[in-house]
Amino acid sequence: MASENYPSRLLADAVQQFSRLPGIGERTALRLALFLLRLNKEEALNFGHTINEFVEHIKFCRVCHNLSDIEICSICNSKKRDRQIICVVENVKDVMTIENTHQYNGLYHVLGGLISPIEGIGPKDLQIDSLCKRIPAESITEVILALSATMEGDTTNFYIYKKLKYLQVQVSVIARGVSFGDELEYTDEVTLGRSIVNRIPFDKT
Amino acid sequence: MASENYPSRLLADAVQQFSRLPGIGERTALRLALFLLRLNKEEALNFGHTINEFVEHIKFCRVCHNLSDIEICSICNSKKRDRQIICVVENVKDVMTIENTHQYNGLYHVLGGLISPIEGIGPKDLQIDSLCKRIPAESITEVILALSATMEGDTTNFYIYKKLKYLQVQVSVIARGVSFGDELEYTDEVTLGRSIVNRIPFDKT
Repeated sequence: MASENYPSRLLADAVQQFSRLPGIGERTALRLALFLLRLNKEEALNFGHTINEFVEHIKFCRVCHNLSDIEICSICNSKKRDRQIICVVENVKDVMTIENTHQYNGLYHVLGGLISPIEGIGPKDLQIDSLCKRIPAESITEVILALSATMEGDTTNFYIYKKLKYLQVQVSVIARGVSFGDELEYTDEVTLGRSIVNRIPFDKT
Repeated sequence: MASENYPSRLLADAVQQFSRLPGIGERTALRLALFLLRLNKEEALNFGHTINEFVEHIKFCRVCHNLSDIEICSICNSKKRDRQIICVVENVKDVMTIENTHQYNGLYHVLGGLISPIEGIGPKDLQIDSLCKRIPAESITEVILALSATMEGDTTNFYIYKKLKYLQVQVSVIARGVSFGDELEYTDEVTLGRSIVNRIPFDKT
């Protein structure tokens, strides 16, 4: 559908914004924009306001870099968690995925990505230094590496293992119940839960 | 994915807003919300602002009820259009679809729906009275009914035909190249273009 045929600039702009989102083409974007006009105005305005509140005020936890409404996230703040274990994950979605397995009660550390020379992502672009600092500062006894079973995940696992080797901390990786090449995000929760329970010391992999 | 596991209320609210949109489930909504955080903040805020500008300021053309940035839409305002023909359509998407056929150069009239007793939509809920007033006021010589080939479309066609029968105006319907039960919106442009060219007087259907 050619954009010069939009009857209104406001509509064309709204469609353009919706179609920037991943997986949303121009036809779907038009449907979404017109859907908002069928709501009452207050509800429709609430859509944009809520999204902007989120973008404007969301924080990354100062300790673990998970998404949070406040400086320190609810997991880092919780008195019910085991504060001696850190589970290292690629991104905030992985925190939610692991929380949903109900098999883990420690802390997290969100790297913000994986080492990927092809995409130009090196260790300095990730939250690896702050992970190393947390080990002595918080008297951590175990670090669980829960990264995707891809080449980038393995590279990152190995890099972190080398960095932590001389600290007084046990380094584990989640058990590979997952086939090679699979993304963590799409793993079913039962498999992922088992692989957390069955984690093994890094130097035995 | 259970919503109690969101690490942040702001995130949960944003996901909830995205998942109100048609065809967007909670998992996709989460992906869209997190996508916005990967943009720079100004671009991300622009998303919500643009959507709200659209919702706040979009108008329906006073004459034809098409979407417009100003009181009278660009088609009603155009000096290049044939101002004696009105094409009656269900909604604003249908105007865009017909414009894309490049087979029609007259005016439009957007009903805002179809007569549907099951959904409780009667003639008074649609822009039919304002259509009748336009015929003498604008010296219209022909009205083309371009509604979906469904029972609701046929009912609406017939109702409008009866209302216009005693006015000095030719009433046509677009040719049925389209199989019964199809929605206008999904018709390919070639078929739709031909059906506009081959329209036939209503009382010969």
